[in-house]
Amino acid sequence: MSEILKRVADVIESRKIANGGDPEKSYVARLFSKGDDAILKKIGEEATETVMAAKDARAGGDASKVLYECADLWFHSMVLLAQFNLKPQDVIDELARREGLSGIDEKAARTE
Amino acid sequence: MSEILKRVADVIESRKIANGGDPEKSYVARLFSKGDDAILKKIGEEATETVMAAKDARAGGDASKVLYECADLWFHSMVLLAQFNLKPQDVIDELARREGLSGIDEKAARTE
Amino acid sequence: MSEILKRVADVIESRKIANGGDPEKSYVARLFSKGDDAILKKIGEEATETVMAAKDARAGGDASKVLYECADLWFHSMVLLAQFNLKPQDVIDELARREGLSGIDEKAARTE
Amino acid sequence: MSEILKRVADVIESRKIANGGDPEKSYVARLFSKGDDAILKKIGEEATETVMAAKDARAGGDASKVLYECADLWFHSMVLLAQFNLKPQDVIDELARREGLSGIDEKAARTE
Repeated sequence: MSEILKRVADVIESRKIANGGDPEKSYVARLFSKGDDAILKKIGEEATETVMAAKDARAGGDASKVLYECADLWFHSMVLLAQFNLKPQDVIDELARREGLSGIDEKAARTE
Repeated sequence: MSEILKRVADVIESRKIANGGDPEKSYVARLFSKGDDAILKKIGEEATETVMAAKDARAGGDASKVLYECADLWFHSMVLLAQFNLKPQDVIDELARREGLSGIDEKAARTE
Repeated sequence: MSEILKRVADVIESRKIANGGDPEKSYVARLFSKGDDAILKKIGEEATETVMAAKDARAGGDASKVLYECADLWFHSMVLLAQFNLKPQDVIDELARREGLSGIDEKAARTE
Repeated sequence: MSEILKRVADVIESRKIANGGDPEKSYVARLFSKGDDAILKKIGEEATETVMAAKDARAGGDASKVLYECADLWFHSMVLLAQFNLKPQDVIDELARREGLSGIDEKAARTE
């Protein structure tokens, strides 16, 4: 999988309270310390902000705001995945399964 | 970046009407033919369903539903990115930038 | 309370399957027959559409769309209230409680 | 219309900056001073929290939380209505129109 996604997931994992994350110092540790509801609210918020950014972009605003909000949405969904002991690789595997892209194809693709 | 994400993005790109996507045959082409609002509604819907799946999982349900809904959310945000001529790689680059993970680190990481 | 809100709530109540609502004939009965998740998805959808309508109105669109989407949002939240055996009057009482508007004030206000 | 809803709308209206609302003292004035986006984010947040409250209630929690979150959602949609110079009465009129409840019926109903 993307090394970057894996590294971001590793950083998120390290922010879990059980892994020594400090809510005083880390935003993600703070989300973990508050629990499910705080994380789920962020999913709703970031989805709303993504919709707003897309509307703003169409009304003459900057398309890069769509990108930033989408990054926020992905980041917080990775926090949610971590909260349920899931990894971005699991999401990617699921997307591959749906698209009929096998792991062998994936491996072959990497050697291209 | 993840070859799988790139391939999924390529499939989505090929479903654009300008690229020959057929709304009669493809769900994604149908979203593109309807335009921004149809795609944005899906972002809102999938975020809501992700929240519901997480609540269900905590109430004794299956955590894999969180994974499926998260895959739906990522998939539809990739459709939105395509609608604004953005790529999942752009999101990943943005996440890397925020986390202070440089492209050089990324490259180094791949050789590990 | 508003007679109109009470009447809308009465119509919604009459669409419950237990009250003879027919999913073949009534949209609300169909929502009730599907259960919580179908209703909750509508809350998420209508909130997203309200946000989109407000953005459209600011970009030169019609403010009346904000009104229509807000009516959709209130209507579906009344279906949700009914699903939990709550009434719009309960919401209004809660709003009054927060604003420090007592029932006596309410009664006095009606005679104005 | 409901006197309570009208009074809540009047309080909200009085919190507009143009009407002397003070962002230092009033939460609603603060929302108005921040503008559309702050209000729209609240719509998204409160809808998400309503969904969460309903799921919690079904998992053995308190149904009154559904009521509180629904009151939050209605309250913030009244702030949004005010931001677009609309009133809860407009929403109620729209609901009446859809349900085929005429103003005459409404008036008749009040004398019951």
